[in-house]
Amino acid sequence: MKNIKVGVIGMGRIGKIHFDNLKNQIEHVEVLAISDPFFTKNVGVPNISSEELIQHKDIEAVIICSPTDTHADYISLCAKAGKHVFCEKPHDLSVNRVLETLQEVRDSGVKLMLGFNRRFDPNFQKIRSLVQQGEIGDVHLLKITSRDPAPPSLEYLKSSGGMFLDMTIHDFDMARFIMGKEVGEVYAVAGAFTSESVQEANDIDTAVITLKYEDGTMAVIDNSRKAIYGYDQRLEIFGSKGMAKVDNNKPDTHVLYNEYGAHGALPLNFFMERYTMSYKVEMQKFIEALVDDQPLPISGIDGLKAMMIALAAQLSIAENRPVTIKEISEEKVGREYTEQIIVK
Amino acid sequence: MKNIKVGVIGMGRIGKIHFDNLKNQIEHVEVLAISDPFFTKNVGVPNISSEELIQHKDIEAVIICSPTDTHADYISLCAKAGKHVFCEKPHDLSVNRVLETLQEVRDSGVKLMLGFNRRFDPNFQKIRSLVQQGEIGDVHLLKITSRDPAPPSLEYLKSSGGMFLDMTIHDFDMARFIMGKEVGEVYAVAGAFTSESVQEANDIDTAVITLKYEDGTMAVIDNSRKAIYGYDQRLEIFGSKGMAKVDNNKPDTHVLYNEYGAHGALPLNFFMERYTMSYKVEMQKFIEALVDDQPLPISGIDGLKAMMIALAAQLSIAENRPVTIKEISEEKVGREYTEQIIVK
Amino acid sequence: MKNIKVGVIGMGRIGKIHFDNLKNQIEHVEVLAISDPFFTKNVGVPNISSEELIQHKDIEAVIICSPTDTHADYISLCAKAGKHVFCEKPHDLSVNRVLETLQEVRDSGVKLMLGFNRRFDPNFQKIRSLVQQGEIGDVHLLKITSRDPAPPSLEYLKSSGGMFLDMTIHDFDMARFIMGKEVGEVYAVAGAFTSESVQEANDIDTAVITLKYEDGTMAVIDNSRKAIYGYDQRLEIFGSKGMAKVDNNKPDTHVLYNEYGAHGALPLNFFMERYTMSYKVEMQKFIEALVDDQPLPISGIDGLKAMMIALAAQLSIAENRPVTIKEISEEKVGREYTEQIIVK
Amino acid sequence: MKNIKVGVIGMGRIGKIHFDNLKNQIEHVEVLAISDPFFTKNVGVPNISSEELIQHKDIEAVIICSPTDTHADYISLCAKAGKHVFCEKPHDLSVNRVLETLQEVRDSGVKLMLGFNRRFDPNFQKIRSLVQQGEIGDVHLLKITSRDPAPPSLEYLKSSGGMFLDMTIHDFDMARFIMGKEVGEVYAVAGAFTSESVQEANDIDTAVITLKYEDGTMAVIDNSRKAIYGYDQRLEIFGSKGMAKVDNNKPDTHVLYNEYGAHGALPLNFFMERYTMSYKVEMQKFIEALVDDQPLPISGIDGLKAMMIALAAQLSIAENRPVTIKEISEEKVGREYTEQIIVK
Repeated sequence: MKNIKVGVIGMGRIGKIHFDNLKNQIEHVEVLAISDPFFTKNVGVPNISSEELIQHKDIEAVIICSPTDTHADYISLCAKAGKHVFCEKPHDLSVNRVLETLQEVRDSGVKLMLGFNRRFDPNFQKIRSLVQQGEIGDVHLLKITSRDPAPPSLEYLKSSGGMFLDMTIHDFDMARFIMGKEVGEVYAVAGAFTSESVQEANDIDTAVITLKYEDGTMAVIDNSRKAIYGYDQRLEIFGSKGMAKVDNNKPDTHVLYNEYGAHGALPLNFFMERYTMSYKVEMQKFIEALVDDQPLPISGIDGLKAMMIALAAQLSIAENRPVTIKEISEEKVGREYTEQIIVK
Repeated sequence: MKNIKVGVIGMGRIGKIHFDNLKNQIEHVEVLAISDPFFTKNVGVPNISSEELIQHKDIEAVIICSPTDTHADYISLCAKAGKHVFCEKPHDLSVNRVLETLQEVRDSGVKLMLGFNRRFDPNFQKIRSLVQQGEIGDVHLLKITSRDPAPPSLEYLKSSGGMFLDMTIHDFDMARFIMGKEVGEVYAVAGAFTSESVQEANDIDTAVITLKYEDGTMAVIDNSRKAIYGYDQRLEIFGSKGMAKVDNNKPDTHVLYNEYGAHGALPLNFFMERYTMSYKVEMQKFIEALVDDQPLPISGIDGLKAMMIALAAQLSIAENRPVTIKEISEEKVGREYTEQIIVK
Repeated sequence: MKNIKVGVIGMGRIGKIHFDNLKNQIEHVEVLAISDPFFTKNVGVPNISSEELIQHKDIEAVIICSPTDTHADYISLCAKAGKHVFCEKPHDLSVNRVLETLQEVRDSGVKLMLGFNRRFDPNFQKIRSLVQQGEIGDVHLLKITSRDPAPPSLEYLKSSGGMFLDMTIHDFDMARFIMGKEVGEVYAVAGAFTSESVQEANDIDTAVITLKYEDGTMAVIDNSRKAIYGYDQRLEIFGSKGMAKVDNNKPDTHVLYNEYGAHGALPLNFFMERYTMSYKVEMQKFIEALVDDQPLPISGIDGLKAMMIALAAQLSIAENRPVTIKEISEEKVGREYTEQIIVK
Repeated sequence: MKNIKVGVIGMGRIGKIHFDNLKNQIEHVEVLAISDPFFTKNVGVPNISSEELIQHKDIEAVIICSPTDTHADYISLCAKAGKHVFCEKPHDLSVNRVLETLQEVRDSGVKLMLGFNRRFDPNFQKIRSLVQQGEIGDVHLLKITSRDPAPPSLEYLKSSGGMFLDMTIHDFDMARFIMGKEVGEVYAVAGAFTSESVQEANDIDTAVITLKYEDGTMAVIDNSRKAIYGYDQRLEIFGSKGMAKVDNNKPDTHVLYNEYGAHGALPLNFFMERYTMSYKVEMQKFIEALVDDQPLPISGIDGLKAMMIALAAQLSIAENRPVTIKEISEEKVGREYTEQIIVK
């Protein structure tokens, strides 16, 4: 079985995770180069310019972990160079830019996978498989709790596209993934309670988002940018045959009982620890699909659809009313394109 | 310390619970009579007509557990007769009728307590006290899960006033009780998924209701009329200093580990088992307040306010938009009265 | 269906529990009298001398809740008077005295039940039924954790017969009840770590007791007189088909997550709260058996057998060796009697 | 900071774990060679004979993962060659052989670490740190549950030295590690319930072992070779200030509630999954200690002491009596040597 040759653009926190997984944990892959002008450590492969990397004759696939505003350009270059792409979310903050590059990707015939890593988390995978095996029966309601331990910096917030596009987008994707059907309408309420930087960035940090699927079933997501007790990532599914939920992962299982109460560990602190496994499996699935020439588990359209939900949530907040995905899609994507791409 | 003399009208399921508690579990009270033409068992006190009971010269307080459509009339008679009232929820399905009897109660000087028994449940009491002690900090979000094990009969459904007024009203009251502040706006999505009788009654059985409090903080309630695994009554509170949640009560704590998995008990089946303690404490508090001539822990206004939220939720479903309590109140109660009674 | 008429001797903590249950919670029974010279409250029935109570012509059964050193005498008087007996454990601290009164009970034909109330606890009942239904398969090991929140007074300790006869005796009975077979050999290690009064009473307060059943399977009990976090009553069963365990009961189900950890409630504090249900069911089963003229669920022989195990544990500590029940029985009960009574 | 150069002897299940960790997960180390005649996969380093590996001029430390009966010889060769040693447990099944090689190790000045990997498990580390921080107060009792999912093959059993030396030895080491003090006396009961091969091997598969520490405090271990629900690795510590326990690790946190009950995942199946982290940290600590020229966290004496406890447990079973470590030590090690080495 052949090895896929890859290059990694961007060696920040997530880039390093992917690089280490590709190098040490995943079979049938070889990292030929990295590209990050600010990364000076020697990791055993050449650190070259992003253009050189994308044009590298032996590299078949490119892992894009650079800042968001470079994603679309790199995807575009990869499409032109005939290189498959794994791209960290979000694809881009502009719908038009996403649509353009999706078209380029489609025209070029390369494969594109968006990094919605949480789909590969063992907890959420278990829920998904319970749904698929019919253990929940007809599913009526999905509940997602997703809270970060602390808000990002003001600088980050300003270029993030807002909480829905930056953070909740994972939950919007999860809402599609678990239920296996499309969201039709969105209503959101939100506030900015946790920090001055959030207010200064004119962003929100706390929200409850209600989703109606096209068949009338429902999901509800609650977010906070600041859960003082750590990274809170839970999910519950309810239907005619049962209910299932997954709790947070913890660093250990201890409970201490003393005169003041029973005390246990807090959740694993943030995505690096919490989603270690899902980052690894996600990359494994990407490589496996390339090796076997199979469709990738997450597509660029998945990224676009999560984005539509986020935009609907933003509009819902702005106008305090439920907003349909169709409305967003027709406005942002165009009616024709909507039918072609979104409403398959 | 003197004993309060009471009579119980209605000896159905809840009437019997209250009667037994009053007779065996609660101090400083004496049951002088019951009234229920369909109840034939001898429980050691005379079973007389409701009018006789209300007019009984020694009876100081009346416990109303008869069908909903009799509540307002009995309250009215009690007010006229100068008898304190404990009345099972709901007060009445008509806002006007509620307002009328509240006025009569107010004019007569008797005390009226609505039976929102869940306020006295040890789990919810604990959450309330954590909030009051500041353990949650500034509270940003309340989440209530409230699911019944099975939908009521078609007959019941038809006279129930709909799920929001019949079932969710407990959760609306809880949303006020836990947060200690008033709801300003309501948005609800709902469906009828669980049974034909619900559809036939033109009712709903599954809902997600988002509440915005007047200060911008939020609550979200999710309901189902049919949780196949039993009576699901959970609650979570989230704020700047922490998060707390309470889980269901179970008949035992066993977990069985065998080759198929780890298996534990289901929640206590329904309100009779689940809220045994809260029914008892509720009645205890009613009697204690009468003995000490103190204000009752739940007032008729509390009943009215929960009803307003339910009406807002109904309208939200009907028109698929967020609805303010003010709007409901001004329409249903009248602007003047709203200011006088609701917006204190 | 007829009512059983009973009297209660001893209105201390446990006497009052039984009295309240008999009066308010249990059907087919009537309390005609109590007897306790130090109990002055009016509970609606006459407080008469123990002799009068036992001789009372209408009383059919006597509930003995007086101090331990009076139990055997009262049982003896009841046997002579033809009254059935419910007696709190222990029967007596002297094996001879137990044997004598058991003989009297047997000769008189009255029924005697020992108050091993924990057999009726929902948690332990669940484990027992899992064993009986074969869910555990061949049972290999039983583990019991039984810890009190605080050691009793020096005065109590001095007349208690020692920890094994006073406290662990419940666990010895549980070891027979859950497994449904007889203990053959005992080995115990122990220490006095928790208080000076335990040391002054020449008693122990911490122990691990290993039991070998006659078929070679095993149980292990661990005790402490002082668990600072409350009353710790857990049990685990292990066998060829699975393992099951029960945890402590708690006053509420809350968990609070803050920056310091996850915090929950401590176990219910002591036997009054923890075994509320088992006290009630125990008495219910006693009355039901009398009404139906059926055998009582716990016999005097059960009390004797638990006592034998306690004596074996005491000897094991004294001589630091495993001690067989046969050895204890032959020495204390006599070989002939052992075969007749103990080894059925 | 320099890199330690190592070689790995034995590439069976555990050898491969260590190799992968050394190669991919641990810093400051380089694997120069492996040695396993039955291992044919190319892992990027030469596969040479064990003698060549031990004599390899650049190799500073040897990781011994070969069959038990080769351990002592390889340790001996390493000592002569001046190579540090990490050796999987057990050192050897003969006390004399252990003593000989320990002397050689001591004389040569090389460092020897025994692979009691569980000391590095996050759960047990947490308990250890709670004890050390005084959160438990004076510790009175340690409880260890250690059950394998299935008994090994008859062939393995025959050369294993018996359950106590093969399996429980980890628990005996844990009993010393957690409590930080020495065991004085052992009493064990056991049976062979789970398989014919265990009986044929004249071994046991189920046991309860009581340990008395030299200061009178206690530990109790329960073992089974066959827990049908998986690998059961729990621990509880009890003392004057509190109790703490750790539960099993699970592959996910899901609970499914349906009409039959609440169902969750079983423990991680066996040591490969359960102790992934501890294998990694163990090797990390070994390498770090060599890099910094610090004492190793586990010594050869630790191996010997756990072995003494196992031998005492064996004798306890054989003679059905408590056995002191001193007795074992004087008989097996010699009085003089005991004082010199064991009783420091």
